[in-house]
Amino acid sequence: MKQYTVVMLYAFILSGFLGFSQASQVSIVEDFKPSSVNQPGQQYPQVNSQSRVRARISAPQANKVQLDLGGVKYDMVKDDKGTWTGDSNPQDEGFHYYQLNIDGASVPDPGTLYFYGAGRLGSGIEIPAKDQDFFALKDIPHGLVSENIYFSRLTNSFRRCFIYTPPGYNENATTHYPVLYLQHGSFEDETGWSAQGKANLILDNLIAVKQAVPMIVVMDNGYAYKTQNNNRDKKEQLVSVFEEVLITEVIPMIDTKFRTIANRENRAIAGLSMGANQTMRIMMKHLDTFSQYGGFSGTSNYPSSDVIDPSAFLNGKYKDGDFINKKIKLFWLGLGTKEPSPFPKSVGAFRAMLDQQKIKYVYYESPETAHEWLTWRRCLKQFASKLFR
Amino acid sequence: MKQYTVVMLYAFILSGFLGFSQASQVSIVEDFKPSSVNQPGQQYPQVNSQSRVRARISAPQANKVQLDLGGVKYDMVKDDKGTWTGDSNPQDEGFHYYQLNIDGASVPDPGTLYFYGAGRLGSGIEIPAKDQDFFALKDIPHGLVSENIYFSRLTNSFRRCFIYTPPGYNENATTHYPVLYLQHGSFEDETGWSAQGKANLILDNLIAVKQAVPMIVVMDNGYAYKTQNNNRDKKEQLVSVFEEVLITEVIPMIDTKFRTIANRENRAIAGLSMGANQTMRIMMKHLDTFSQYGGFSGTSNYPSSDVIDPSAFLNGKYKDGDFINKKIKLFWLGLGTKEPSPFPKSVGAFRAMLDQQKIKYVYYESPETAHEWLTWRRCLKQFASKLFR
Repeated sequence: MKQYTVVMLYAFILSGFLGFSQASQVSIVEDFKPSSVNQPGQQYPQVNSQSRVRARISAPQANKVQLDLGGVKYDMVKDDKGTWTGDSNPQDEGFHYYQLNIDGASVPDPGTLYFYGAGRLGSGIEIPAKDQDFFALKDIPHGLVSENIYFSRLTNSFRRCFIYTPPGYNENATTHYPVLYLQHGSFEDETGWSAQGKANLILDNLIAVKQAVPMIVVMDNGYAYKTQNNNRDKKEQLVSVFEEVLITEVIPMIDTKFRTIANRENRAIAGLSMGANQTMRIMMKHLDTFSQYGGFSGTSNYPSSDVIDPSAFLNGKYKDGDFINKKIKLFWLGLGTKEPSPFPKSVGAFRAMLDQQKIKYVYYESPETAHEWLTWRRCLKQFASKLFR
Repeated sequence: MKQYTVVMLYAFILSGFLGFSQASQVSIVEDFKPSSVNQPGQQYPQVNSQSRVRARISAPQANKVQLDLGGVKYDMVKDDKGTWTGDSNPQDEGFHYYQLNIDGASVPDPGTLYFYGAGRLGSGIEIPAKDQDFFALKDIPHGLVSENIYFSRLTNSFRRCFIYTPPGYNENATTHYPVLYLQHGSFEDETGWSAQGKANLILDNLIAVKQAVPMIVVMDNGYAYKTQNNNRDKKEQLVSVFEEVLITEVIPMIDTKFRTIANRENRAIAGLSMGANQTMRIMMKHLDTFSQYGGFSGTSNYPSSDVIDPSAFLNGKYKDGDFINKKIKLFWLGLGTKEPSPFPKSVGAFRAMLDQQKIKYVYYESPETAHEWLTWRRCLKQFASKLFR
């Protein structure tokens, strides 16, 4: 009871003494609805027309409960039944990771589905977007998303990738398809593009209205290491072998298991953030393997914003602009208009280099989104509609 | 600090005054290892050679944290850094759902993968089993588990099923396969059999050593409702239509999309607990659709343990034992030896009826397991090895 009184007093102080200048911010519209990525039957978290998030959890004996969303920790308030409720400031449209803090314990909200991001499975919230129709689940033919477990000789471990096969893949038993290799960002994994990225629904929707050609999409895990002895001190160290895993293990496996068109003209590679950086490096070293590239919120000069010297950058891979223009059928870059530093300047420096080298590319900006999944969903939509044409 | 002292005092009292007769129970072997279903890189929860679970979570400001496992809430103890640790009593081998309680909030443990059970996504722990090799992930050919979204006219909603296709399915483009329809239990969903049931690994392992024939396994959601007006008071009520969804929507979809052998001889149906009850009812009404049945920890007389009158039970479907013996190629029942009431007596009453009717069936008992997933993994292994022979 003492607890409650203190919180109420705090709320009174806030509203009475500090609240005048924040009147518009604290006027909360009571039209909250359950988030679309809640667990079945769960009423909380909710989102209102101001794009505020309302979280709720029962924690009768807790001293302090917070909604931890978008880098801000919002104190929640306890009612007389021990249920805590808290509202966030208005959020950007799209998908955000978040968590609850209960007396210092950071835990997933029991109300939501869980998504792998920030290096762990955690809660997600979906703020309705004005253009959400392009990733909506509709009554149209749907492709399959298949979990494929494989043992990697290179990493000496089991790995997993997910493969999207388009509507009709199973029914049309002789048709072969082009393939997009699509990578997640840092601290995410192979589940990201289908779970929070909605890659399967974006492709289903595009293919249904013939805005994209039917294609296979392979989503692997960008973290792949082998242990190797350090020459100097003979200590074991981890070395990234994702490029080798992709080129020598994953692509041959996919070309064996699925009805692909196994040539460079029908193979594209793309990624977001860390994945954009990785896949650009792989692309430029394997132009005989891929002909089309998509970089969503990232380029291989990250995190630098310095002017790029094409004779030195990536071992001079961009030195010959004419060669690149002949070899790369689609060079596609995308960025959100609200992305934080260093992304705008770093991608900007990369574009300046492309311009200087007269390398043709498509540049797309996602309005009013930051370094988050709505940017990447939109990027995938735009990019996929131009692929394999 | 006060908290800690109190707990230590309590431990002292327990060990000093009450502990003599419980010496073996409170002697904890310090050979804990991370659970195999933890998130990547997570050190906790752990399991030791006594099959005790040790949970750990940082919650510096919490008053009380508990490990809630197997119907028992174990008080955890805080160290001077605010990290709480708690051990459970020895657990049965296999997979168990659990949660943490932080000052009254029931939340998933941030250390584990999440599994849908008890009507929500929650934590799971894997206690190593002596026979765990049969569901281990091995360097052998693996089948795919494919997520298939479909719109059901009957429920007027999107639904989802997962389809296991055996190793070689994609490479051998002309081979057709028998199909097992495999259902989860109450408060579980279509993810259960592949996530915590490890159905794909069990099949991969059996197929690799030719102990099972390659088959397709379809795992749908047993909850399917339509709204219908009640005749008396005209109020809307929910009516289960799972049988209709399976027979008129799912099976035709699977037979169209996958290379099945689409006849009763090559179609089996099985389920666990609620799923055993459901699938038996469906089987007996659709003997032209299915020829083989598996009931894991359940039969359609649940929860009754009364003597069954075959002329009345399920509309007399078991009246003619000779007909059943001719029609049903494999009638398979399984149960754990530690299952709670009413399962042993209820399944026992059902078996007595089968015996009375001279209906042939296979009966399997899973040693030392209760109404949990190790029972059902073992049932699947036994059942699948006899299917489609």
